Order: sequence, then C-alpha cells, then structure tokens
Amino acid sequence: MSIRLLILLCLITTQATSQIPTDSAAFFIKDIYRQTLAEEKAYSWLTTLTKGIGPRLSGSEKSIKAIHWAKATMDTLGFDRVWLQPVMVPHWERGEKEQVLMITPGAGVTELKALALGNSPGTGSQGVRAEVIEVQSLDELRSLPDEQIEGKIVFFNRPMDLGLTSTFSAYGGAADQRTSGPVAAAERGAVAVVIRSLSTRQDDYPHTGMTQLSDKIQNIPSVAVSTNDAVVLSNTLKKGKVELYIRTSCQMMEDALSYNVIGEIKGTTHPEEIILIGGHFDSWDVGEGAHDDGSGCMHSMEVLYRLRKMGYTPNRTLRCVLFMNEENGLRGGKAYADSSFANNEYHLAAIESDAGGFTPQSFGISPGAETSLDSAMSHMSGFMELLEPYDIELKAGGGGADIGPLKPKAGVLMGLRPDSSRYFDFHHSGLDTLENVHPRELAAGAAALTSLVFLLDQYGIGE
Amino acid sequence: MSIRLLILLCLITTQATSQIPTDSAAFFIKDIYRQTLAEEKAYSWLTTLTKGIGPRLSGSEKSIKAIHWAKATMDTLGFDRVWLQPVMVPHWERGEKEQVLMITPGAGVTELKALALGNSPGTGSQGVRAEVIEVQSLDELRSLPDEQIEGKIVFFNRPMDLGLTSTFSAYGGAADQRTSGPVAAAERGAVAVVIRSLSTRQDDYPHTGMTQLSDKIQNIPSVAVSTNDAVVLSNTLKKGKVELYIRTSCQMMEDALSYNVIGEIKGTTHPEEIILIGGHFDSWDVGEGAHDDGSGCMHSMEVLYRLRKMGYTPNRTLRCVLFMNEENGLRGGKAYADSSFANNEYHLAAIESDAGGFTPQSFGISPGAETSLDSAMSHMSGFMELLEPYDIELKAGGGGADIGPLKPKAGVLMGLRPDSSRYFDFHHSGLDTLENVHPRELAAGAAALTSLVFLLDQYGIGE
Repeated sequence: MSIRLLILLCLITTQATSQIPTDSAAFFIKDIYRQTLAEEKAYSWLTTLTKGIGPRLSGSEKSIKAIHWAKATMDTLGFDRVWLQPVMVPHWERGEKEQVLMITPGAGVTELKALALGNSPGTGSQGVRAEVIEVQSLDELRSLPDEQIEGKIVFFNRPMDLGLTSTFSAYGGAADQRTSGPVAAAERGAVAVVIRSLSTRQDDYPHTGMTQLSDKIQNIPSVAVSTNDAVVLSNTLKKGKVELYIRTSCQMMEDALSYNVIGEIKGTTHPEEIILIGGHFDSWDVGEGAHDDGSGCMHSMEVLYRLRKMGYTPNRTLRCVLFMNEENGLRGGKAYADSSFANNEYHLAAIESDAGGFTPQSFGISPGAETSLDSAMSHMSGFMELLEPYDIELKAGGGGADIGPLKPKAGVLMGLRPDSSRYFDFHHSGLDTLENVHPRELAAGAAALTSLVFLLDQYGIGE
Repeated sequence: MSIRLLILLCLITTQATSQIPTDSAAFFIKDIYRQTLAEEKAYSWLTTLTKGIGPRLSGSEKSIKAIHWAKATMDTLGFDRVWLQPVMVPHWERGEKEQVLMITPGAGVTELKALALGNSPGTGSQGVRAEVIEVQSLDELRSLPDEQIEGKIVFFNRPMDLGLTSTFSAYGGAADQRTSGPVAAAERGAVAVVIRSLSTRQDDYPHTGMTQLSDKIQNIPSVAVSTNDAVVLSNTLKKGKVELYIRTSCQMMEDALSYNVIGEIKGTTHPEEIILIGGHFDSWDVGEGAHDDGSGCMHSMEVLYRLRKMGYTPNRTLRCVLFMNEENGLRGGKAYADSSFANNEYHLAAIESDAGGFTPQSFGISPGAETSLDSAMSHMSGFMELLEPYDIELKAGGGGADIGPLKPKAGVLMGLRPDSSRYFDFHHSGLDTLENVHPRELAAGAAALTSLVFLLDQYGIGE
C-alpha cells in the first residue's frame, strides 16, 4: 500500500460517513472489472444501436428512433427515474450523394471521393465549377492577393501531423481548415472549399464534420475529399491548372424537436450531489456513430446498470446523460446545463466519454468554478491508485464538450482518455461502424468509468 | 520535476561518464517518438516480411528466406556488425489440410474447422474415428475411470476466462489443455485429443500452438477446433453419443539448420556491457506471424536503426537479436545464451518484445542472477518517469522466453507489455496477418523500446 493510499485510508476512517475502506474498494473494483469484461454489455447494446438503428444526425428520424430505444432500454434497468429532456436542434440534411469531379485539360475527368461538410450549404442543382488553388493553412490564404482567390475553389491540404504523440493533438492542429476554412475563403471571394480529410490514414474514405457558418457573408459550399484523393489533386495541381466541379444538395432545415435521454439512481446520504456520466447520442450521418459517440453513450448506460446490478447503493445521485447535438450545435449540453442551473443542482463531478471505445489509458480532470485543480488532483490521486493495476492514470486537463456548460456549478469535469491511435482512422467517416469497435476494449472503458464513479461516490473530490 | 528524478539527476551529474542530463534526455525521447511515429518504419518492414515472405515456421523454406531478408536489410542500416548464428531446429510440417468430421447418429456429418497442434503426430491416411468424451480440465480427466477414456477422443473444452483483466492470464489459465492435454490423455489410453481453440473471440478460426510430446508413451494426434465449433460439439454431446473422424498428415522431420539473425552497434565507453533487444523470428505456419512475432522483430530492428539514424553514439553495445524457434523448441534462445556464455559476455539488460504490435502500456522487469529487483526498480523508476508522458509504466515481473536462458549472466530481463485486448483474437491463427496490425500502434511500441534502450544506455541499471 502506498503512503498516499495509507493517508487517505486514515482520513477516511476518521470520518463518519458511509465510505468503505480502500481494501474493500479494491475488491469491489476487481469485481467491477470481472463482471464488465465477462458480460460485454456495452457492446451488446452498441450492436443494437448501430446495426438495428444506425447513424443519428441531429433532427433525423433515426436519431428519434434511437432516443426512444435508449429510454425504453433504461426503463428495464431498474434506475429510479428515466426521462427525456426536450431540446430544439439544428436539422441539416446531406441530400443526394456528393459529386466532385477533377477536370484537367488534356487528361480528362476524375471523380474524387468526397463528403459535404456538416452545416455547409448545397451548390444547387447546377453545381459549381471553378479553378482550384491549393493552400496549406488559413495564414497562407490570408497572405494571398485577392485576385488569386476570387472566383476560385480553395483547397486546404495540410495533413494531420502524425509525429505528435496524441492523435487528438494532430487533429487539433489541422481542424481549423475544416471549421474556419470555408468562411475565411468566402470572405476573400472564393466560390467553394475543398479540404483534405482529417484522417490518420492514407485511404479512400472521406471524413465529414462541422464547419462554422457566418451570418455576415454568403456561406459557400464545402466538401472533404479522401486523403488519397487529396494527394491526387495536389499532384495534379503541381503539373498545371485544374478545375473542380462540385455538386452537393445538402441544406439546413428548420430546427427540430429532439431530446437528451437521462437515467438516474438517487443517492442515499448526499442525494443533492450529482455524479454525471455521459456521452453524446447524435452522430454524423455516415457510418454508424459507433466510436463517436455510441461507445461513450453505452459506457454511460453501463456505469449505472453495473452498479445497480452489483447491488451497490450510492451515497450521491448518479446520472447517466445521453446528450443530443454535440456534433453541430451543442444544444443538448446547453439545454441540460440551463435546466440544471434553473433547478439549483450541483454536480460534484461531470464525466464525459467521447474519445472512442478503445482501451482506456487515463482520466483527464479540470476544476469547476470553485475547486482547485491541485487539491482535487491530490485528493483523487490517492484513491485513483486503486486503478493503477488496470493501467489507468489521472492527468490534469480534460472534460468534454457536452459537460463544459456545467463548469460554473460543478466540482470537477472529467473525461475518459482511451488509446487514441485508431480513433481518427474512423472518426466522422463511413468507417465508424461496429466492426471497428472491439468488445473487450469497449468493456475496459466501461469498467474504468464504473470504477471512477464508484470511487467518486465513496470518497468525493476533497475540499 | 519529481524528487526521484531530481535525485537521479544529482547522482548522474556527480559521475564522470558520458551521461546526458535528464532534461536533454526528455527532448531526445520526444524526438524518438516524433520520428518513429511519423516514419512508421517497423510497419514498412513488416509489410515486406508478411506480404513478401509470409509465415516462418522453424525449418521451413520461408523461414530461411526471411532470415536472409533480415540480414540483407540490417546490412543496409549502418550497424557495426550483422551476422547469422547457426542453430539446429525442430522441423515439423502440417502437411495436407486437416479433416475433422463430427458424426452424430441420425444427424449426419458436420465438418469442424480445425488445425493440428504443433509437434503433434499425424493420424495416418486412414485417420482416427472414435467416440468423444468432453472434459473441462486435466484434473477432470484424471478423475475419470480408465474405461471412460480408453479408445476415446478426449475433448478439452474449458474456455479462456475473459473476466480476467489480462488476456495473457486468461491464456495462461487455459493453455495446459493444449500443452499437456494430449500426453495426459494418451497416458490414459485415449486415441486422439481435440481442444477448444485458445481464443478471446467466439468465431470460426482455429488456433494452433505447441503441444508437448513424451518419449515414454505413444504420442497421439491432437487438433484445435474453432471456438464456434467447440460450442457446436459440446451442445451435440449434451444430446447423446458423438463420434469424431480426424485425419491429419502432420509429421516431425529431421532437425534442420537455421539461424538467429543478429545486428550490433558497438558501445564506446562500456562496450563490454550489452543491451539486447529481441523478438522471435519463427512463427506458426498459418497466418503471417504478423503480431507473433514479426512485430517484436521489426521493433528490435527499428531500435538500432532509429538510434543510428538520429546520430546517437551509444556507451554500451546495442544488439538486436531475431531468435529462431521460440514456438516449438526455444533452440535459438538457448544457442544464443550458450554462445554468449562461452564468450564470457555480460548482458546489462536483455529486453524482449513478444506480446504483439499493440499500443505499449508498460515494461515488465525481472532481476538477473546478481541484481536485486528492488534496487533495479528503484533506480529505473527514476529515469522511467521520462516515459510517463507516453503512458508507459515500469512493473515488476516479466522478460521473454528467448532471453530467459541469459538470466544467470544478465543484469535485468525486461519485456514490453502492450495492450493485450486483441492479441488472442489473432495469436497462432490464420488471422495473425498484417491487416490486424495498426501502423501507429506498432510505431508506439518501437518508440517506447527505443526510448528504453536509450535510457538504459545512458543511466544503466543501478548498483
């Protein structure tokens, strides 16, 4: 037993609470792992969600079907309360399959594999045809004279930097092309934007994702091409002028009624302190939203399911939240926080799983408004040593998009950090399917999260 | 900076050696990761090995082809010396595809997917046909009266326990059926053995692997059936008598000449202290030996390649060893140790990578003959903190089969421990192919090993 653990144990035993000694906690966690790995419950639910329903873009019919399935499933799990929380969400539709043609004088026409970016306007039925100009960054775009951009299609082609240890850092270093490239190009007079897919693989699968719109300009159509086709386009441009023809029929519809799905087990000794575990239930409309974020949602359901099945009576109130509309609006996260603030709720801890169903490596922690990171890290490092045998560490920084709005009235915000090696192979593409989720890796995440929620319920977050 | 790291730094700076300060070491390790992740060299070699050559069973033609490819490749990498170390190895051949038929009175004949166990004798061209008796363990077999076993085919059907956190533990808890089941059954008069494949998945792929022979009895034919077919067979047995017909044409040939492949970079200040990094180059004859252990071999080659490419001049002698015949004899490991002892060599550290090309989690360490685990752990924990940002820990226990014979004259034995979630999905089966290795996960292992070898070369293993 480490010194930190010994100190924690001494502290705990001097308090009159319903806390259990850490050696018993170690046995309980071992049992959580044993049962979670053996049953693979999250995978079984994810199979139904992905193969029985499919992708769940905000406002879509399938997203509503999934919401009702999740509520009906939670209703069978013996929670104290399960409810739908209404929220109006953006409703963007892709429409017909995109057509992106590369037209090279003398060399004919080549079709590129492409997906319109989420939120992007369509081209209209005639499509857009223009000469292409390649840039590596928004800065490079800004440095160019207007006449080189006006009337052109801007091609953002900076790859993710695979030399970085975390693929999330590599994604973060390239994603501005997708999120801000179309508006930046439109402001300079471009007629459309093509981006190199944000992917860790060199392959034929385009990756979609949200692009920001501006209400000050005419937004322009934008698409992502596969990494292989980005190389083809770039190599062709090296030889001379290239035109692209782009036709998309995507459009933004009226906002639609949707829901967060919430399940709750009421706490006994401190019911007013909420421990939230959640993921986002919406996904992009390609693939099946298996890793992003079916996995995090099934993780969250399993945490409450597992603790209830093991006969555990929590001190605090445990809440599982499947947030709607993380991908293109965050309306679910905002609506949940608004409602929570209106009801004067306090979240002792809000935890999000939105980084895929891969083998967990650590939990990231960020302080809420009235907590110090140092004290929370120090307190939690003690009991988190119980997760050391499972190769789970505690690291500073992290949380999740959906739980972010809770920060002003939360103790700590935390995020599960799984191995990120494969995440961006699949993310936002047709490859984000059940076949690319491993049942045992998914189960390891559920076990880690269940153990964390158990530990937080037992030992809190310190002063 | 931690206190341990600070103390280590003080110790280091008071010694007159060619050691570099730990802050410089941290930068060097960052560069190792950056270059290794960006270049994916191990994956590029593994592609040639698996797709250009294929599986490499000891004594096979392909194993010799692979040996010459590895030597020729190392010859281009600027090592100080590359050589082949001759070793006589067992030469077992599978022969024609196995036939295993389940014959049920009234229900006809069903073919089961099966692979003969390595080393197993064949059935002869007539095959073996007998009634099946199912047991869950060697103990259960021992408890049965002779008349229930004599003339029967014994079916060992205990699954791996997926509730265990490490799949290696689950494998270890079930593997006695494969390694010792056939001899135990033969001693009781059985005519053949069938085992449930040692696999973490419920699927149609049989998994082979070594079974032990005895020179005191007539060894009997033994095969593994896929986990799906094990369930089919067991369910059919629940309904009444079942016969199996087994035909295999495998046979043990004369021992064959083979080689360990060794590459070396000579140390400058302590050339007499060897740091070995190795894997085993032989594989089973199904699949491509991609994870087991093409990955470990390519890891090992990359460690020396990377350090040389980065212009690093080692203090100690670095040696990369591709051992032959780990799977069914360990002759390469023994021959290497014999030769090393004869030459009065001292291995400061011997490290093996033989647990797949998955994301690394930790290094296991075991003491050699004259080292204390506590002192080595304590010394190394200091500088291993430099690997904490990469989620790599140091854990007690571990090494590798091939380096085991070096123990009497080694400082420490160490083993890379990657995420084990998927390893036994593929291990010893037709699924152990390049497609199931992820380039980035493989690269992360190479980076971790290169960093470890660098740290050991800089800071040694303590008193």
